[in-house]
Amino acid sequence: MNHLMLKTCAVLALGATALSATASDPERPRLRDTGVVIGTLDPGPRNAIVDVPGVRVGHATVVEGDAVRTGVTAIVPHGGDLFRDRVPAAIVVGNGFGKLLGVTQVQELGELETPILLTGTLGVWRAADALVERQLALPGMEQVRSINPVVGETNDGWLNDIRARPLRAGHVRAALDGASEDNIEEGSIGAGTGTVAFGWKGGIGTSSRVSRTDAGSYTVGVLVQSNFGGRLTIAGVPVGDRLPDPQAWLQSTAATAPPTTGDGSIMIVVATDAPLDDRLLRRLATRALIGLGRTGASMSNGSGDYVIAFSTAQNVRRSPAAASHDVGVLANDAMTPLFVAVADATEEAILNSVFRATTVSGHQGTVPALPLDLVLPLLRSPQAQGVSMP
Amino acid sequence: MNHLMLKTCAVLALGATALSATASDPERPRLRDTGVVIGTLDPGPRNAIVDVPGVRVGHATVVEGDAVRTGVTAIVPHGGDLFRDRVPAAIVVGNGFGKLLGVTQVQELGELETPILLTGTLGVWRAADALVERQLALPGMEQVRSINPVVGETNDGWLNDIRARPLRAGHVRAALDGASEDNIEEGSIGAGTGTVAFGWKGGIGTSSRVSRTDAGSYTVGVLVQSNFGGRLTIAGVPVGDRLPDPQAWLQSTAATAPPTTGDGSIMIVVATDAPLDDRLLRRLATRALIGLGRTGASMSNGSGDYVIAFSTAQNVRRSPAAASHDVGVLANDAMTPLFVAVADATEEAILNSVFRATTVSGHQGTVPALPLDLVLPLLRSPQAQGVSMP
Amino acid sequence: MNHLMLKTCAVLALGATALSATASDPERPRLRDTGVVIGTLDPGPRNAIVDVPGVRVGHATVVEGDAVRTGVTAIVPHGGDLFRDRVPAAIVVGNGFGKLLGVTQVQELGELETPILLTGTLGVWRAADALVERQLALPGMEQVRSINPVVGETNDGWLNDIRARPLRAGHVRAALDGASEDNIEEGSIGAGTGTVAFGWKGGIGTSSRVSRTDAGSYTVGVLVQSNFGGRLTIAGVPVGDRLPDPQAWLQSTAATAPPTTGDGSIMIVVATDAPLDDRLLRRLATRALIGLGRTGASMSNGSGDYVIAFSTAQNVRRSPAAASHDVGVLANDAMTPLFVAVADATEEAILNSVFRATTVSGHQGTVPALPLDLVLPLLRSPQAQGVSMP
Amino acid sequence: MNHLMLKTCAVLALGATALSATASDPERPRLRDTGVVIGTLDPGPRNAIVDVPGVRVGHATVVEGDAVRTGVTAIVPHGGDLFRDRVPAAIVVGNGFGKLLGVTQVQELGELETPILLTGTLGVWRAADALVERQLALPGMEQVRSINPVVGETNDGWLNDIRARPLRAGHVRAALDGASEDNIEEGSIGAGTGTVAFGWKGGIGTSSRVSRTDAGSYTVGVLVQSNFGGRLTIAGVPVGDRLPDPQAWLQSTAATAPPTTGDGSIMIVVATDAPLDDRLLRRLATRALIGLGRTGASMSNGSGDYVIAFSTAQNVRRSPAAASHDVGVLANDAMTPLFVAVADATEEAILNSVFRATTVSGHQGTVPALPLDLVLPLLRSPQAQGVSMP
Repeated sequence: MNHLMLKTCAVLALGATALSATASDPERPRLRDTGVVIGTLDPGPRNAIVDVPGVRVGHATVVEGDAVRTGVTAIVPHGGDLFRDRVPAAIVVGNGFGKLLGVTQVQELGELETPILLTGTLGVWRAADALVERQLALPGMEQVRSINPVVGETNDGWLNDIRARPLRAGHVRAALDGASEDNIEEGSIGAGTGTVAFGWKGGIGTSSRVSRTDAGSYTVGVLVQSNFGGRLTIAGVPVGDRLPDPQAWLQSTAATAPPTTGDGSIMIVVATDAPLDDRLLRRLATRALIGLGRTGASMSNGSGDYVIAFSTAQNVRRSPAAASHDVGVLANDAMTPLFVAVADATEEAILNSVFRATTVSGHQGTVPALPLDLVLPLLRSPQAQGVSMP
Repeated sequence: MNHLMLKTCAVLALGATALSATASDPERPRLRDTGVVIGTLDPGPRNAIVDVPGVRVGHATVVEGDAVRTGVTAIVPHGGDLFRDRVPAAIVVGNGFGKLLGVTQVQELGELETPILLTGTLGVWRAADALVERQLALPGMEQVRSINPVVGETNDGWLNDIRARPLRAGHVRAALDGASEDNIEEGSIGAGTGTVAFGWKGGIGTSSRVSRTDAGSYTVGVLVQSNFGGRLTIAGVPVGDRLPDPQAWLQSTAATAPPTTGDGSIMIVVATDAPLDDRLLRRLATRALIGLGRTGASMSNGSGDYVIAFSTAQNVRRSPAAASHDVGVLANDAMTPLFVAVADATEEAILNSVFRATTVSGHQGTVPALPLDLVLPLLRSPQAQGVSMP
Repeated sequence: MNHLMLKTCAVLALGATALSATASDPERPRLRDTGVVIGTLDPGPRNAIVDVPGVRVGHATVVEGDAVRTGVTAIVPHGGDLFRDRVPAAIVVGNGFGKLLGVTQVQELGELETPILLTGTLGVWRAADALVERQLALPGMEQVRSINPVVGETNDGWLNDIRARPLRAGHVRAALDGASEDNIEEGSIGAGTGTVAFGWKGGIGTSSRVSRTDAGSYTVGVLVQSNFGGRLTIAGVPVGDRLPDPQAWLQSTAATAPPTTGDGSIMIVVATDAPLDDRLLRRLATRALIGLGRTGASMSNGSGDYVIAFSTAQNVRRSPAAASHDVGVLANDAMTPLFVAVADATEEAILNSVFRATTVSGHQGTVPALPLDLVLPLLRSPQAQGVSMP
Repeated sequence: MNHLMLKTCAVLALGATALSATASDPERPRLRDTGVVIGTLDPGPRNAIVDVPGVRVGHATVVEGDAVRTGVTAIVPHGGDLFRDRVPAAIVVGNGFGKLLGVTQVQELGELETPILLTGTLGVWRAADALVERQLALPGMEQVRSINPVVGETNDGWLNDIRARPLRAGHVRAALDGASEDNIEEGSIGAGTGTVAFGWKGGIGTSSRVSRTDAGSYTVGVLVQSNFGGRLTIAGVPVGDRLPDPQAWLQSTAATAPPTTGDGSIMIVVATDAPLDDRLLRRLATRALIGLGRTGASMSNGSGDYVIAFSTAQNVRRSPAAASHDVGVLANDAMTPLFVAVADATEEAILNSVFRATTVSGHQGTVPALPLDLVLPLLRSPQAQGVSMP
């Protein structure tokens, strides 16, 4: 783990923290490092949500004893006063079996007034409470009596003793305080510490695209917390069909197995510097689900699949003190290249989350990292596609 | 305060609790006691949400020192195992400027798996956390790793030191543990302790209607937490135009005034024993907003106006263990009488909330109870209607 | 009928047209002429949707023989090229039991590219087809291959032989060609020719309000096609309870009666010169339903209750040729006065529609005009309110 | 063209009909005939929407002179009285830039009361009018005064002289009268006569899956009208990147080219015999968009992407005469296998539409059939996937 990672990954030592078990592994490649390319658009310089200028990401990884494997991830739209310099935002629900907090106010007012947090299912309310506590204590917030925290989750309850509800306010503060424009960490970290995707270890993944529209070039960045299932498909190749069962492969003796059939969830956060209002952001967010589907998900019943999108463009921001706003927004017709960008970046962010995630042992057993030595050869084989020509 | 009230109103003594300041006043009449009738349908025997068999209501009133005036109200759909014997439910957003928790899962799955809580704005996350804690500790819940608490709020931040965030898990447990099928308390109690409606003291109100459909007679019950504004209109008479300004009337010297123009919010909970699925409940909930409008609200920008509706009918309940359900539901065409019922019961519940609420002094000043001695004569005067005939 | 009316009311002579039976009656007063005032805001100079500068209204009344009593009403947002100088727009569904055409595109793109038409239920598709034909033939439209007509309806099938489907393209052209900025006609005209409200004759009604926001004064105008029911309530007085049954009062011998319990529908068109984008227009449109409820509707099952809202402000218009738009829009917080305006103007427009509508005989019998000589005294009586004081 | 096709493909001879140019070509294989398999579930016996018992499909192909290339396709949920034996239904909007008629009533009442029609953009209103005319003339419909036709479209305006608006009521009747439980025709037929997908000829495609749920085995059938674009992806292989530009490949001298970047649209119709209510059908329909995305679409701005889903199960049908219904519906938890089925069947139906479609010349030029001799080798090549391993 290099210096950058140490700086931005706030691992809190509460109880017996087994840091090494969950940190992201610099040895594991990102998808693109293996030569696999999703779509035809170029990524931004870091191929990460932080390629959108101003966006910050922070993680707090919570690992305690044998059974606590959770964490929190913060996505901060910009470094200014979010409550007074609001960003337009939209939330799209792919499958609403989840506990995402803050939905109706974002949909009504079309804006975000706090950072976004991701964590484990039974921790969302405490995370929101801690976020509110922190934001209300910021300078200039003394008279604020209403605030709308946006907190999402996926269920890390197989690796993590979720019923123990280990998340504390300090973890939330650590993720927020450590948020950085340089954070490109992925895998078994922050809100991805205990998550499982396709039966393998999931976690945090990120990607970006630069997209040329009639009104200029813009960056679309995506960060995901992957915890879902389906038929793992990489660049169109349904490798999931050819891989062993993860628990069998481990020769696991665990009494249960983590879900592989799709139950779980995914949180998808989309940032862009394109000047989009909330309606256009809603349209953009809808296309992130296309990228999700391409990785093999069918948005199963038990999956809470959500997209939160925001624009950081200066000319669409809103001050609650103003009676009106002069904004410059893209035309409907200029959106198509951004739609392609968000679908592709979401697909790659999800695949990065499983490529980068490392094996984690926890509450009910061990979830292995995706065995890339088995996967990569499958990507070269036409048989993997189920194509058998006469 | 009679014995019944003592039993069901769980007032927690934390710090210096000034019980007498906020209890409901048996001297203040309900709307119907003054001879004013809303609509043409008959109410149920208690003219309250608890007329729907099985529905329970509990309050915890939190009054501490000079500045804490808040509380929590619990609405429990039935006395059984809510997680396994789920009721169909719907949520309708009139104006989404609020922090209602649990929305997307109710909308996706069409069902409620916990009681509903109402409280003050900055207390929702803690209330949800406490509700989760309590529900997960119930017998038979040992393996449950996901639960969707539904918690709504209105902003009691003028009478209540909302930024102190005084709500504790004990208050939530008290409201839930004290929930009773006999609870018909109204006014400055529970989640209504610190709320303000039309500049006067608002709070909890309830009402019910018995409605005859082609498929049988059913009860529709409504409970509200009123905290909004507009032009107070009672049975069609815009008495708000003829009443003094509440703070002027008080000869108040407070530095600020509570909002009268509509900012605030209302939570409306609708229960029925009519066999409705989630789509029909959504349609029912939409009509509650009609009743809200008739009291003089225009759903102002700052108001979080929400309706949560559920059906207690046995033949629409759902067990998560079953692969399919045999349900009996009303036809679309049978709904109209229920629509009339919910609009009327909502209007009367709101008016009950202000008729029954007592004067409360708190954080930023005093909010007087609606002066019925001024109001009732206005209801007799045609001039009150703005009708000036040539 | 004065010159103005002759000019703007395009009554087509197809077959035996009984003009006198359905024209609006200058003898019948508007609500406000009788001294009844709704709300506290002032109306615009004509108290009509055409108070919003640029908005045009046109009617074609179709009366043939004994049984054809229908028509079409056109609302034209401005006098320019609507396809290239688009207005932001929103559609809100109160109760979706109707055939409103064009909904999803307005919701997706947030804009209107044609005039709005209102007509009878079984005529919407033909009206849309005729509108498309006309718009595609306009200069500059030679290359247009996609266009989204917005056409709404209510069911005039009691007075009108709706199954004969008498609407023709010529009627649509006449309404559009005759649209005028001076048209303030109301009652049994255009799309209101055969409609029934509360068992009495309904039809077209209009009203407006001038509303002062933090960003300036704006006009909100409303036009309705009323064809619904409930408990007729005028300025809060439920006069419907004290009026005779319309058919009994007529001593009608008709085999059937028109619906009085609410089935039917209402189309509500809202125009404003306030600079609102589609999200703010959606919020505005939602409040029109508040005004509907105040007239005694509960949005019954069989009622298609819709609101279409658009802004004519120059600085929110959109050209499909541009890649981006610089727009000035109101802040969320500035909306509340407009919400009050639209609720009040909708209530008054509905009441104008029944005050101004004249008796019409048609397909299945006669629907009498609301007997104002019975109604006006009831507005003076406190007993009408159901208030019986001890 | 074999006997079966002659019977079920109603080609109307109006003007100079060039039948041979647009009939489906028995020589062109379906996707699965080439050895390419989508997903792991088995299709039904005919791999078509008509595998759902009772569902009928009919086409009318309208080819006249050099420039008319359009048609209409009817999907009939069952052979009984649809108005009285209604099927639950849902409509999901992927991208709402389209003219789908009938949306709000289906969403409000959750049911379908007519067959579904698909046609070209500027023909939808006339098609709806003709459908209404026909349905109102059926026996037993004499008293019906309201009916909600559901008619969708995609824009065939490159091959078809869409502004000439050639669709006639007779075409609609022919498609409906010819609807058959045996119709498995695909390609350049009916509503697919003039459509273009990925720059190649699109059209009608169909597929089905048999899915095992905890409550039994059910069939999910899909029929699409493909007219969109993106990056053509077959079984995960982005063959679109390796194929020539269709017009260049043709050595076309046409002044314009059909859209390849995604503008266009797709209509997706989903039928199932699983007992689903409208909410569950909405959930099912959402997953069809996953299948769309896997073929390379990103739901571009100009694309109207819609899904209409209905259930034919006897125990979820509704009679408008009944005051209540006893229905048996699947549990939420039983849905996941159906979600997988609909995503896979949609993907395969789309691919079938381009595999089966034949070259069509028309209004603005020629659109070639997808050159399978170029495509099939690409499916064998790992390079096609953009995977370049070190």
